[in-house]
Amino acid sequence: MSIKDNTTPVQTDYDLIIVGGAAAGLAAALYASRRALKTLVITKALGGQLSMTPSVENFPGTKEINGMDLMQNFLEHAQSAGAEITYETVSNLSKKDGVFYVQSTGGERTAQAVILAFGLTPRNLEVPGEEEYTGKGVTYCATCDAPLFKNKKTAVVGGTYEALDAALLLAKLNSKVTLIHDKSGYPSQKKMFAEVEANENITIRLHTTVLRVDGEMTVKSITLKNEEGSEEVLELDGVFVEKGHKIDSSWVGDLVDYERGGAIQINEVKETKTEGLYAAGDVTTQRDKQVVVSAGAGATAALSAYQYIQKKAGKPALLVDWDHSEEA
Amino acid sequence: MSIKDNTTPVQTDYDLIIVGGAAAGLAAALYASRRALKTLVITKALGGQLSMTPSVENFPGTKEINGMDLMQNFLEHAQSAGAEITYETVSNLSKKDGVFYVQSTGGERTAQAVILAFGLTPRNLEVPGEEEYTGKGVTYCATCDAPLFKNKKTAVVGGTYEALDAALLLAKLNSKVTLIHDKSGYPSQKKMFAEVEANENITIRLHTTVLRVDGEMTVKSITLKNEEGSEEVLELDGVFVEKGHKIDSSWVGDLVDYERGGAIQINEVKETKTEGLYAAGDVTTQRDKQVVVSAGAGATAALSAYQYIQKKAGKPALLVDWDHSEEA
Repeated sequence: MSIKDNTTPVQTDYDLIIVGGAAAGLAAALYASRRALKTLVITKALGGQLSMTPSVENFPGTKEINGMDLMQNFLEHAQSAGAEITYETVSNLSKKDGVFYVQSTGGERTAQAVILAFGLTPRNLEVPGEEEYTGKGVTYCATCDAPLFKNKKTAVVGGTYEALDAALLLAKLNSKVTLIHDKSGYPSQKKMFAEVEANENITIRLHTTVLRVDGEMTVKSITLKNEEGSEEVLELDGVFVEKGHKIDSSWVGDLVDYERGGAIQINEVKETKTEGLYAAGDVTTQRDKQVVVSAGAGATAALSAYQYIQKKAGKPALLVDWDHSEEA
Repeated sequence: MSIKDNTTPVQTDYDLIIVGGAAAGLAAALYASRRALKTLVITKALGGQLSMTPSVENFPGTKEINGMDLMQNFLEHAQSAGAEITYETVSNLSKKDGVFYVQSTGGERTAQAVILAFGLTPRNLEVPGEEEYTGKGVTYCATCDAPLFKNKKTAVVGGTYEALDAALLLAKLNSKVTLIHDKSGYPSQKKMFAEVEANENITIRLHTTVLRVDGEMTVKSITLKNEEGSEEVLELDGVFVEKGHKIDSSWVGDLVDYERGGAIQINEVKETKTEGLYAAGDVTTQRDKQVVVSAGAGATAALSAYQYIQKKAGKPALLVDWDHSEEA
């Protein structure tokens, strides 16, 4: 590891290991590397949710960019600052005598500090054609992709608040929307559902499930099945899957505290309850699932990790601020 | 205003007014405009501190960019989404019957919600002549203005890292520099101060204060007072004030709570103690003075303002999340 200080008791493979390679994780990797921490990103794949988004229009300063391109830019930026990345699945995390042990498909590695930034996993339709047309008409993020379906035909599938939000947003963009839910309604979103019902651009199909997604290069239709078991083919341009997300954090165990849905509890500088362990982005209680918010959180987590590692090594915990007051 | 709802009691000029036109304010403007809020940014100038930064290397995804160019990109992005901007100084903020009144050099405007994102302000000398000659020899930005004083006589005033940096930059431009500090030295910048001491273009005056600035159209001299109380007139062409920064939030009054240095207290979704009033970026208690962290905070503030305005208008407070689970 890179801290050359006699007060550091244990050598580790890395100063910092970041689990997750999307907005939060890669921004953290950039900031950590710029502070000369030896940093490894372990991730299943590059870009997380964002890699499925053909057009990101809300990353400030960039009017439009493919989600994967944006994440590739994040990665190259972090790598140019010295960060390493490896594509593996992490299966266990533990801490002993101030050292973190990260177990993955690549083996076991040690680090002084760890940042958890592995995001959310969308709940899928789990039907034929879904995977094939993901990013080609099938999407999991209305806020990201709705503007691409202005004046087009779409379906929103799911029983979530976000399904209603997506339907209203698409209707506002003059898309002809079919809202599909396999239950009888949206009991805890009555007010919002009333608004959906009143919207002439939205057709509601309750007690209805999606059987398959078909297309030709891009999505052309979905096949529905209603309560009575009869099937129907619905022609359309886009399918918004809004069945919610899950946080797959079981391997983190009791090193952190969780809120509803498995979200990891953090404070404003992204510390968890375990010293040296930070979390950032969609895996946390952060309200806004947005690239720039997650990137900011990743930067903050990295700066917290940096301070922790410096202090542990008995070095001054330099801040990165430039708003120094005058010296006394 | 754009909310057409009978339950909205009072019409306002804008849905949202954002005070400040740098990373936090412009990211907020982008997010608010994308949610169809009628949004105005009021700012003294574009880009804040960042506009003085020739090279930003830590905005994720962009390896290197001029600070002003980055802020110009943020602005154009927000404008393309519908945000308006005006260059004025805000002097008062009040709230009555649920409406915010924003008083500026352009007059009074009303809004449903306000985001404070006006950043940091350089600390002044607070001596006669300073204000009169600001921009006429007195400057607060060495990076911006040093090249104007090539081969001339200058003073740098302050105890900051930036003061030492400014002195070295001016000396490099062959300016004859007097570095003035009212304390005994720069204890936490020993290495850099040694470099300043060794520079033959720089004269160091410790335990010395500036009493006044004089000139004739432009700066001609400053009057110094040393430890023993004796005064001296120093003829020169430029005065670089590098006394650090402060938060100039007096005009906000008791609508918010403050921490040390005048930083505005916020919670994790950027709410202040006043409903409908948000704050983001360097003007807040946010630890990291970083573009990406401020931009993320601005986005969050805008989404909070959006929720508030929707709720107030009796409309569903759409979240931008996509992490809700499906309803049973």
